[in-house]
Amino acid sequence: KDSIDLAVIGGDGIGPEVVAEGLKVLEAVSAAKVNRTEYDLGARRWHETGETLPDSVLEELRGHDAILLGAIGDPSVPSGVLERQLLLRIRFELDHYVNLRPAKLYPGVITPLAVDRVAPEGIDLVVVREGTEGPYTGNGGALRVGTPAELATEVSVNTRFGAERVVRDAFARAQARERKHLTLLHKHNVLSYAGHLWRRTVEEVGQEFPEVETAYAHIDAATIYLVQEPSRFDVIVTDNLFGDIVTDLAAAVTGGIGLAASGNINPDRTAPSMFEPVHGSAPDIAGQGKADPTATILSVAMLLDHLGRGDEARRIEAAVAGDLSDRRNAVRSTSQIGDAIAARLS
Amino acid sequence: KDSIDLAVIGGDGIGPEVVAEGLKVLEAVSAAKVNRTEYDLGARRWHETGETLPDSVLEELRGHDAILLGAIGDPSVPSGVLERQLLLRIRFELDHYVNLRPAKLYPGVITPLAVDRVAPEGIDLVVVREGTEGPYTGNGGALRVGTPAELATEVSVNTRFGAERVVRDAFARAQARERKHLTLLHKHNVLSYAGHLWRRTVEEVGQEFPEVETAYAHIDAATIYLVQEPSRFDVIVTDNLFGDIVTDLAAAVTGGIGLAASGNINPDRTAPSMFEPVHGSAPDIAGQGKADPTATILSVAMLLDHLGRGDEARRIEAAVAGDLSDRRNAVRSTSQIGDAIAARLS
Ligand SMILES: CC(C)[C@H](C(=O)O)[C@@H](O)C(=O)O
Ligand SMILES: CC(C)[C@H](C(=O)O)[C@@H](O)C(=O)O
Repeated sequence: KDSIDLAVIGGDGIGPEVVAEGLKVLEAVSAAKVNRTEYDLGARRWHETGETLPDSVLEELRGHDAILLGAIGDPSVPSGVLERQLLLRIRFELDHYVNLRPAKLYPGVITPLAVDRVAPEGIDLVVVREGTEGPYTGNGGALRVGTPAELATEVSVNTRFGAERVVRDAFARAQARERKHLTLLHKHNVLSYAGHLWRRTVEEVGQEFPEVETAYAHIDAATIYLVQEPSRFDVIVTDNLFGDIVTDLAAAVTGGIGLAASGNINPDRTAPSMFEPVHGSAPDIAGQGKADPTATILSVAMLLDHLGRGDEARRIEAAVAGDLSDRRNAVRSTSQIGDAIAARLS
Repeated sequence: KDSIDLAVIGGDGIGPEVVAEGLKVLEAVSAAKVNRTEYDLGARRWHETGETLPDSVLEELRGHDAILLGAIGDPSVPSGVLERQLLLRIRFELDHYVNLRPAKLYPGVITPLAVDRVAPEGIDLVVVREGTEGPYTGNGGALRVGTPAELATEVSVNTRFGAERVVRDAFARAQARERKHLTLLHKHNVLSYAGHLWRRTVEEVGQEFPEVETAYAHIDAATIYLVQEPSRFDVIVTDNLFGDIVTDLAAAVTGGIGLAASGNINPDRTAPSMFEPVHGSAPDIAGQGKADPTATILSVAMLLDHLGRGDEARRIEAAVAGDLSDRRNAVRSTSQIGDAIAARLS
């Protein structure tokens, strides 16, 4: 089909600004007609109506080819409300079980690591973060809140079903890459029940991918490797919480979350996938044109990839790479960066 | 009392080697007589007898002034057995609710970070990791193991009692430091039950420490700060799992776990505290004299501090600082490093 039916959620803080640049680049590259539907979701709507994600909106979202999201979260809303009822609700309801987060150090980009840690191999890894289980299910509770006897629990839920499908996806991605290397991150020496489930799943699914070499690292040790020798990683597979942590660190060592793209992917295509920059809403710089739209623009490339438009995705990545290598210390506004990248596409 | 009644657990891998150097330095610095009792615990004993930590040994450990531990863990033992039944059992039974982990960049030490990330402020932070709750309680389970319907859970257990005592300890430590700054690390936008408990506890206990400034960071964002701007942290307080992760990263940016000391502290002194390097047993280099004993030696300094022998602790730290600033690229064996540091103390 030669049109893209896109749901757009600008969201909170810098979300709308960076999404505008993402759409600019999408229009510049896409041979398909882009039909956008904007959804007004986030802090403003919650304040005005008390709504986070009405069921009717969720149903409408299901009808699109893909969703582009800016950011969700605002300090004026109690912590967890928008995250759980809006962002995580979309990820869970649309079964985004693969939260895909590449981390690549582009030429010209400054890493906070010393030069000898990244040269000559560079950094080019992708984290396949599970998106629908783990400690993110909201399974937990509290008792005697506000008293000295208060008790609060959080339950990490892990199923073979949930682990197997994301592990298989990660193996397939590793298989398609040059190094064909997959590392499981967990903490199986302490979280034994979940850890053993994940380990066995990797071992067993690995039989289907004899060419892929596998490795294991505890999540604590993995943070060390990511700053001392990040080139050891190719594809990483891990649970929802460890994936959250490790992708921020991976983003940091590859130039910061201003560049980190992500896809919340439903590989079975039973519902649309959602693409979003890893950075949050950054309310402190919202509306000032200071946000870097590159992460959103690279998320648009991931979106195109998912829709089978790999050529256009590659063109965006090349335009971003070109822009990054020329950046140096230039101070540009959000829209100037978007314009510059869009210009490279025409 | 002018003697130190010390329980010594060399443990697995490089544990015995590094402990030997720690004891060498302890003897060199201590005006008190050191009475040591060695406990044979770890992989070897488990293989021979099936025992990890017999109750009688646990009772004996209680009788000492402090415990010095090398490392626990070996690939020949199923994952989790020694960790849960030996290491974590000691931490839990002896109520080591403060897991204290300083991270300081000593002059002359090479950090994997680019120079401009650490200069001129340097890095000098201390993590107060909760040691007896969180996802470390072994609370969880598995159902239909090995079938496609397998389910595994891990429960993070958090109590007001447990959070309050470690938060109060962290505030007191922040109060005693120059910057008087305390950061809570959590993920309260997702782990709402536990997150709210921790937040409220920090707010309320903070009333007792009006001079201490507090801040909050999500654990994912904290990994970014630790590589981009580590000087923002002074004292960090966090739960058992986040503390495990963040202390490895903090160790990495301050020169590696070869230098990272820790204390598993029972501040109420109802049982002896245990001091250990943060690095594990590193079986790949065991018995080769390649391990850096500095983390253990600095753990001995923490031990002396805990026993009210601050002057001796400061002398060890000065000797280590001297040794580190002269190290450059010298290749020295485990015992050569121990000898050099001990020599600076006579
Ligand atoms: C906002 C928050 C709920 C979210 C997460 O934890 O998944 C964010 O940190 C991310 O990584 O996308
Ligand atoms: C060995 C393991 C159980 C332990 C932990 O997770 O606490 C270690 O990583 C540490 O940090 O001391």
